[in-house]
Amino acid sequence: MVVGGKVLPSLGAILGVRAGTTMAGIRKADRRDLVVILCDPGTTAAAVFTQSHFAAAPVIVAKAHLALAEPRALVINTGVANAATGELGRQDAMACCEALAHHLGCRTEEILPFSTGVIGERLSTAAVIAGLPAAIANARGEGWLDAAYGIMTTDTVPKAAVAKVRLGETPVGFVGIAKGSGMIHPNMATMLSFIATDVSAPRQVLKAALDQAVRSTFNAISVDGDTSTNDAVVLLATGRSGAHIDETKGPNFSRFVAGLETLCADLAHAIVRDGEGATKFVRVCVSGGRSEDECRQVANTIAQSPLVKTALFASDPNWGRILMAIGRAPIELANPAHVSVTLNGIRVFVNGAVDPDYREELGQKAFSEQEITIGVDLGQGSGQATVFTCDLSYDYVRINGSYRT
Amino acid sequence: MVVGGKVLPSLGAILGVRAGTTMAGIRKADRRDLVVILCDPGTTAAAVFTQSHFAAAPVIVAKAHLALAEPRALVINTGVANAATGELGRQDAMACCEALAHHLGCRTEEILPFSTGVIGERLSTAAVIAGLPAAIANARGEGWLDAAYGIMTTDTVPKAAVAKVRLGETPVGFVGIAKGSGMIHPNMATMLSFIATDVSAPRQVLKAALDQAVRSTFNAISVDGDTSTNDAVVLLATGRSGAHIDETKGPNFSRFVAGLETLCADLAHAIVRDGEGATKFVRVCVSGGRSEDECRQVANTIAQSPLVKTALFASDPNWGRILMAIGRAPIELANPAHVSVTLNGIRVFVNGAVDPDYREELGQKAFSEQEITIGVDLGQGSGQATVFTCDLSYDYVRINGSYRT
Repeated sequence: MVVGGKVLPSLGAILGVRAGTTMAGIRKADRRDLVVILCDPGTTAAAVFTQSHFAAAPVIVAKAHLALAEPRALVINTGVANAATGELGRQDAMACCEALAHHLGCRTEEILPFSTGVIGERLSTAAVIAGLPAAIANARGEGWLDAAYGIMTTDTVPKAAVAKVRLGETPVGFVGIAKGSGMIHPNMATMLSFIATDVSAPRQVLKAALDQAVRSTFNAISVDGDTSTNDAVVLLATGRSGAHIDETKGPNFSRFVAGLETLCADLAHAIVRDGEGATKFVRVCVSGGRSEDECRQVANTIAQSPLVKTALFASDPNWGRILMAIGRAPIELANPAHVSVTLNGIRVFVNGAVDPDYREELGQKAFSEQEITIGVDLGQGSGQATVFTCDLSYDYVRINGSYRT
Repeated sequence: MVVGGKVLPSLGAILGVRAGTTMAGIRKADRRDLVVILCDPGTTAAAVFTQSHFAAAPVIVAKAHLALAEPRALVINTGVANAATGELGRQDAMACCEALAHHLGCRTEEILPFSTGVIGERLSTAAVIAGLPAAIANARGEGWLDAAYGIMTTDTVPKAAVAKVRLGETPVGFVGIAKGSGMIHPNMATMLSFIATDVSAPRQVLKAALDQAVRSTFNAISVDGDTSTNDAVVLLATGRSGAHIDETKGPNFSRFVAGLETLCADLAHAIVRDGEGATKFVRVCVSGGRSEDECRQVANTIAQSPLVKTALFASDPNWGRILMAIGRAPIELANPAHVSVTLNGIRVFVNGAVDPDYREELGQKAFSEQEITIGVDLGQGSGQATVFTCDLSYDYVRINGSYRT
């Protein structure tokens, strides 16, 4: 189920980028499981990757390739994550890159590989390589929606977003797609996102913009607290709009980041709304910490608490569990009596006890909504942070108890 | 369901301690919800409490009283946790102590209060106070089993254990009871445990022994990663065996700690076996870290991963999720290829990839057992730590989605 999902916008195209998909039969037959994204020469790129100790083979290869060259193409497969596969896994990822480079007449290091799916199984490079010609033949500027379908795993809906900003007189566009539903947690998730823009910018400017946009979007969502071995967000900039950004400050950079952040927020929230088994979309807004980081720690502790998440699922305004979670957050809390808690704006806890005006019916009504905002004021500073999460339902257990079968 | 639960031993008595219970109607009628534990003069005590920022009113009062005097009695209620209740909650806890002190003819600070149940609701002191005479009248040396029933909340079975050690020529006994099923996590849990021994020892010796025993037992279990506001473990020493320990070293102290640790392990494991919705009992044994703490961090990350826990529930040997969890553990991992993983002794991952001898049927068999040991060798040191946990099932969601109704 998708919580309050939006109708996908018309995605259009970014000049200089084409996406193609095919059914390569990588792990299961009859599903789109191979995607290529092809970029014109002159495209620059930036990326953010998983921080897992067990970064998957494609992540290791993509990082290495990105350090050597600007990319000409991305090759993305679902079904098998090619993670925990050791040196053979690295060779498999390289083989996919080599095959695509051969088709495109470019160098191997100009290809970035991405995989998502089951951890620990070998990737069938034969299936990927056999599928490449069809995916390439299929590639087109308007191929984004098909690509959004092509990267889905346990996702129930494709995730895509567009944004536009104006830099001076010049309109600049963004198109992005993403996948992810479980193993979702700050510092990436089983989450892949590919974003293109027609701005022209050197890599370090793109990287600064991406880091800034990811912070409050992809790094502020949590479905189950788990972090995957394969996460990546890639930003490609073709330069075809004619607009150029060459520094990481000033109004043009700010506008560019704002557009990118809007797009990333749309994609990140779409992932939470499609969280495995999700029936509620929940904003945990923590303010009054001594720093943004302190607020984020508290918000994450609440967002990850199974007891809070099952209460959300049950529409049970058991706000004591929110306090319990704050209580175990890894921060210094000078005076717990200064903490206040609201549910959709209704104050439930203040001055160390239940708000005298709070009535159970009010909390019940708030927790029955599909979209819930848990507000926490720590009362000891001016920091703030918001984390987006969902509830924990029977379906989460069902989906994750039967993922491989 | 209880996973591999044992038949309770005959608990017997510890001379100098009596336990009594009654149905006080604190939150629901017709259930034993009030327990008193009465100690003879000369009893010494030590305790460990929750580290929550929102320590409940009874925890605050018990800590303060313990600082002032040795206890003459404990008063324990279920139904309402008297947490997040502010100054009124503290007064309520004090009122219960005052009433019991009045009955026993002792000072208020000689009473320690404990509560467990719903957070955020006021405790009906009238119900507690009205129930005290019956609980006191009922108190007897063999009252431990009734008391174990009397402190249950979502527990499906009572939890109790006995141990015996010999200090020199003198036999020393222990009896302990515990409650806890959800909100279970290191540094205590929604977990109360009351232990009596007939050794004689000054408080600082008891405290050193208790801290040591709790470390590998109550602080090494996790059902859902949540930590409660009310946790406490109390050790009472009556001195009636004639055995005396007066220092925190030497063979007598070691034997005493060993007995206490055995007892605490029995109780802690009983809590995990009765974990909310548990169908598997899981040992996560991590070795090869640079310190015990490093191993514990990794073990806790695995034990808390919803993806690992749902795979355990499904008997799906999806060991990639174990690697995923190790991958996100907050430690430095110098070389992921040095990590190896076993399931009930069967090696699945070594040298950065699946063990060539591993076959899915072997993993399937291991994960189908009711008792599962996940072994991890980090390959970078000689530390080790074990954490005990259970799986995440539909019933966890059901129980916690309907706890208050």
